[in-house]
Amino acid sequence: MNMRNDAEIILIGNELLKGDRRDSHLKYLGGALGRTGVRPGLCQVVGDERERVAAMVRDSVDRTRALIICGGLGPTEDDITREAVADGLGEPLEFDEEAWEIIRSYFASLGLTPSDTNRRQALFPRGATPINNTNGTAPGFSIDANGCLVFALPGPPHELIPMMEADVLPRLRAVFRRPPIFTETFRTAAIGESTLAPLIEEIVPRYAEFEFASLFSPSGVDIIVSEREGTQQREHLEERATAFGNELKKILGHKYYANGNISLEEVVGKLLAGKEMTLSIAESLTGGLIGKRISDVPGCSRYFLADVVSYSNESKVEVLNVSPEALERYGAVSEVVCAQMAKGVRERMNATWGLSTTGIAGPGGGSKEKPVGLCYYGLSWDGGEEVQHRTFRGGRDIVRERVAYAALYLLYKRLVKG
Amino acid sequence: MNMRNDAEIILIGNELLKGDRRDSHLKYLGGALGRTGVRPGLCQVVGDERERVAAMVRDSVDRTRALIICGGLGPTEDDITREAVADGLGEPLEFDEEAWEIIRSYFASLGLTPSDTNRRQALFPRGATPINNTNGTAPGFSIDANGCLVFALPGPPHELIPMMEADVLPRLRAVFRRPPIFTETFRTAAIGESTLAPLIEEIVPRYAEFEFASLFSPSGVDIIVSEREGTQQREHLEERATAFGNELKKILGHKYYANGNISLEEVVGKLLAGKEMTLSIAESLTGGLIGKRISDVPGCSRYFLADVVSYSNESKVEVLNVSPEALERYGAVSEVVCAQMAKGVRERMNATWGLSTTGIAGPGGGSKEKPVGLCYYGLSWDGGEEVQHRTFRGGRDIVRERVAYAALYLLYKRLVKG
Repeated sequence: MNMRNDAEIILIGNELLKGDRRDSHLKYLGGALGRTGVRPGLCQVVGDERERVAAMVRDSVDRTRALIICGGLGPTEDDITREAVADGLGEPLEFDEEAWEIIRSYFASLGLTPSDTNRRQALFPRGATPINNTNGTAPGFSIDANGCLVFALPGPPHELIPMMEADVLPRLRAVFRRPPIFTETFRTAAIGESTLAPLIEEIVPRYAEFEFASLFSPSGVDIIVSEREGTQQREHLEERATAFGNELKKILGHKYYANGNISLEEVVGKLLAGKEMTLSIAESLTGGLIGKRISDVPGCSRYFLADVVSYSNESKVEVLNVSPEALERYGAVSEVVCAQMAKGVRERMNATWGLSTTGIAGPGGGSKEKPVGLCYYGLSWDGGEEVQHRTFRGGRDIVRERVAYAALYLLYKRLVKG
Repeated sequence: MNMRNDAEIILIGNELLKGDRRDSHLKYLGGALGRTGVRPGLCQVVGDERERVAAMVRDSVDRTRALIICGGLGPTEDDITREAVADGLGEPLEFDEEAWEIIRSYFASLGLTPSDTNRRQALFPRGATPINNTNGTAPGFSIDANGCLVFALPGPPHELIPMMEADVLPRLRAVFRRPPIFTETFRTAAIGESTLAPLIEEIVPRYAEFEFASLFSPSGVDIIVSEREGTQQREHLEERATAFGNELKKILGHKYYANGNISLEEVVGKLLAGKEMTLSIAESLTGGLIGKRISDVPGCSRYFLADVVSYSNESKVEVLNVSPEALERYGAVSEVVCAQMAKGVRERMNATWGLSTTGIAGPGGGSKEKPVGLCYYGLSWDGGEEVQHRTFRGGRDIVRERVAYAALYLLYKRLVKG
C-alpha cells in the first residue's frame, strides 16, 4: 500500500487479539480524530510482539502523517512498545531522569515506592518527548519520525483519554489546522430496520455530500450522516443536515425523536420536567431496566418518584394493588395485570404517570398460549390507560431491552402528543 | 513483515474507523478462533475503500493460512468487499445463479422481492464457494488462494456469528486439526487493582506455561490465564490452572468467587436458591441496577421477590417504612435511612434478606459533608443488619455500577460465610 494517510492507529495487546477484552480505543480515537478534522486510514491490532510491532511502525511512518500507538507501556516484560518503536525508528533507548522523577513522585503520592522494574518506564527512544500521565505510572511519548508524528500512549482508557485530550489532540490541531469533520446523528425509535431502510434510501441520493450509516440499538435505529472527504463549507453542511432532518420528520413524525447523543430517556425526562409531571414504574420481566435508564439521566429526581420491580405475585398484590383474582384468572403475564400494575404504582406513588411491564423473558417459562418473548407494557394516567403487547425475538437480554424501550416509547408518544 | 500467521482478520467499515460504532467482531472472532486452536496474528480495520482492501488482501494471503474478512457485502455501492477480494486475488467476478435463487427465496420468505441492486450480492470471485446466510440477504463466500483460506462474511453479528459457527470454524478445525487454546478466567471482587497486582506478581513467575491478563470491570478484577504457544498437554495445563486457583484462594479467600464467565449475581443467585432464601432490594441512587443484575440470571424468580427503586422521600416512607424523622434528621443519604430501607423492604416483602443503597451519584447534589460519590449500602436479615459506606470515584455511571457491586458483595459475603 502506498496511500498517504492522515493518521494510523496501532493497538497492542494479546488480550485484544485473543478476544479476552473488547477494544474501546478505536471508537474513542476515531471520534476524537474526527473532531480534530483528521481521518484515520487504518487501524491495526497486534499482540505483544516486539519484532512485529517494530516492522509495523517502520512501514507505517512512511505512509501516514500521524501514528497513534496504544498499550504496551507498562513495567513488565510483556510491555514491548518502547523497544518496538525504538527498533522501528532505528533509535536507541535512553533513560530520562526527569521522567523517572515524575514516576517516583506519582508512586509517592500513593504512599508507594517504585520497584526496579518500573525504571523501564523512564526509557524512551532517542529524540522522544515524554507525555505526562496524571492517572497512572506509565508516561507516554511522542517523536517526530521524518515528518510522521508518532505518539505512544498507555492502554487503560482513564489514562489514555486525558493524555489524548491534553496533549495529542492539541498537537494534531496545530499540525493539520483543520475544522472538525461534520457529523450529525438522527435518532429514531419504534421503527424496524426493514421498514426504515427503503424510506431512507429514497432520500439519500439527494445528499451526495454525506456518507450515511445506520446503527441499530435496543432503543431504535440511529442514522449517522458525515461529511464526505472534500472542502465543503460548514454552513452549507449544516443547512443540508437540517434539510435532511426536516425530510425525516415528514416521513417519520415523532419516531424521529432527537439529534445527537440524546437518549429517549433524556427526551422523556425533559418532557416530564417541562410539564412538571412525575413518573413511577412497575416492572416485572424488565427487572429494573427502565428505572435504571430513567435514573441514568442526571437530575431525574425531579420527576422520577419510584420503580417497583415486582417479581413475585405477592409483591404485585402487596405493593401494587394487583388483584389476586386477576392474577389467578389471567396470570401475571396478561393485559389486565399489566394495566393494574401501571395504575397501582401510579396511585401508590401519587404520580402523573404509571408505566408497567410484564412478560416472559425466557429462556424458560414459555407455553403455547404465552410463548417466550410475549410482553405487555402499559401506561396509566388519571382517567385513562393504554396497554400494548408484542412477542419480541432474540435472547433474554434483547427481549428485556426491547420491551423496556417499547414501554418508554409508549410514554414518550403520549407526552409529545399531549 | 514476513511472519507466517495462523490467521488474520480484516474488518471493513467507515463507521468503525470514524468511531461511530464500537467493534464487537474481534472479541468474538478472537475467542472463536482460540476455541479452534487458531491464533490470529493481526487484525486490520479499514474503511470502504476498494483499492486499499484489495492491496491488503494481496499482502495478507502471502503471510497467513486463513484470512477472515468481515463487512462490505451489502447491496449498495459502498459495499466493496466482493470487488476488493476479486481484485486482490486477480480473479474476475462471476454471477452465481444458485446464490441468486437463495437470495430471492430469502426475500420471498419476508414477502418481498429483491431489487436489481441486490443482484450484486450474487457476484463472487471466480473459484469462490458461497456461504449460506440464514439471517440476512448477503451470502458470504470462501476461496482458496494458494493455500490461504479466505472467508468473506457480512458485518451484522447475528448474520456473521451463525455463519462462523456453521461453516468457517468447522473448515478451520479440519485444516488446523488443533485442540482449543487452553484458557481459564478467575474472577475476584472487592479488591482493587493496586492491591491485587503485587499479590499476583509473586505467583505468576511459577506459571511459565501461562500468559496472564487482568481485566477490570465494575464487579472486580478478572485474571485470565491462557496457554503460551507450545505443545503442552491439556491435562498438565488443567492441573496447573487448578494449582493457580488454589494459591489464589489461599491469598484472597472468598474474594476469589468463581471461574469462567459466572457473574457475582449468578453466584449469589445459586447460594440463595440452594439455601431456599429470598431477596428483596431497595435502591435509591442505583436506580434499579441491582435488580437488573439479579434479574439478568434466568430462573431468578425463585429467590428474587421485588426491588423498590425509591427516588422520592415520599416513596421511601410510603413503601419502605422509612421514618420521616430519620429523613429529616439524617437525610436520605445516611446510615440510618439505608438501614431502614433494607429492613423496610425485607419486612414488606417477607424476604430473608433486604439489600439497600442510597448515595449521591452526581454530577450535582454534593456538599462538603456529603460529597458526590458518597454511598451507603446495607443488608438486613431477621435479627441483624450491616451498613457500610464508601466514597466512590469516577463519573455517575461508574459510581452507580460500583456501589451496586459493593452491595451485592455484602450479601455474597454473608451467604458464603453463613
